[in-house]
Amino acid sequence: MARAGRRPGQNETRELILAAARAQFAELGYDGATIRGIAAQAAVNPALVHHFFGTKEQVFVAALRLPIDPATVVPALVEGPRSQFGERIVRLLLTAWGDPVTREPLLAMVRTVTTNDQAARMLKQFIERQVLARVSAGLGVPRLRLAAAASHMVGLALLRYVVQVEPLAGADVDELVGTVAPIIQSYVDDPGDVTA
Amino acid sequence: MARAGRRPGQNETRELILAAARAQFAELGYDGATIRGIAAQAAVNPALVHHFFGTKEQVFVAALRLPIDPATVVPALVEGPRSQFGERIVRLLLTAWGDPVTREPLLAMVRTVTTNDQAARMLKQFIERQVLARVSAGLGVPRLRLAAAASHMVGLALLRYVVQVEPLAGADVDELVGTVAPIIQSYVDDPGDVTA
Repeated sequence: MARAGRRPGQNETRELILAAARAQFAELGYDGATIRGIAAQAAVNPALVHHFFGTKEQVFVAALRLPIDPATVVPALVEGPRSQFGERIVRLLLTAWGDPVTREPLLAMVRTVTTNDQAARMLKQFIERQVLARVSAGLGVPRLRLAAAASHMVGLALLRYVVQVEPLAGADVDELVGTVAPIIQSYVDDPGDVTA
Repeated sequence: MARAGRRPGQNETRELILAAARAQFAELGYDGATIRGIAAQAAVNPALVHHFFGTKEQVFVAALRLPIDPATVVPALVEGPRSQFGERIVRLLLTAWGDPVTREPLLAMVRTVTTNDQAARMLKQFIERQVLARVSAGLGVPRLRLAAAASHMVGLALLRYVVQVEPLAGADVDELVGTVAPIIQSYVDDPGDVTA
């Protein structure tokens, strides 16, 4: 507990806000939580939350220690040649999971989401609004096809880095890109006849 | 604890064997564990393990309460028209995860594997030997392509049933089959130029 009469330092205030944010996102989901509500729970001015973190999306990324910020990732995926989307997303995934610094928080996220329904709900809304909706609009690809492509990426990370199934775990990056990227690319290129 | 002087009943013996199997598989992995070692740990005759469960594979399936037995699933995937492999595996996945009776143990498995390295190691060896090797041989598809296809299936289950990301969670089975099955089919049909 903070001692009476002592004003918390910047780091303590940041941590207070992040703890409040985690509590609010868990209780209300990504959509329901607000900067105002987070500030109220942390007993700080909403302007301070903006000052430290920026938007609600950025508060979420910081609160969940997400190692991937959609503000960076979405443009990286959408910009650049459409014909190389498959390769871009596979390389991005393998780079993020291949680096121990970003792999640890990604692993933590997978563990949390598979064991905690509230965390799953938060991440669900975040993925839908901040990632899928933007990439789908940016590329003009139906959201179902894009979500299916995303699911392939998630499963690839899980089998390669968590369960470490061979030959996925031992394959080098170029071999995996050569195998998986064309498949992901067909989700983007094909018209997507869902009645087939 | 069992009372002294009382012989354990069949159910108790089965449970003793399954507990010993879980301990042996966790300690030694799928490859390292043996029926003999499991029997020794349960203080029963190895013949009794065979009698109750059959092969080591079947002991594993029972010990981990796997809701999917490769002895049933592998032939279902390999037999039937090769041109419909994609549809068969997507329907199989959606059927298993769509039924609450099988979904619960599948969910439990996902949770265990993402939070417990020993469980991940057991499942890894099991998937490699009992599933991928057989389906790969049965279809004549390179193991890397098949493992990549499997990873797509795993991710699809995770996003649809665990994180419940829309529009994957709300899509009906035929719509998902129409979207995903042709993609999985290309893993089987294409020669797989991994140097591309």
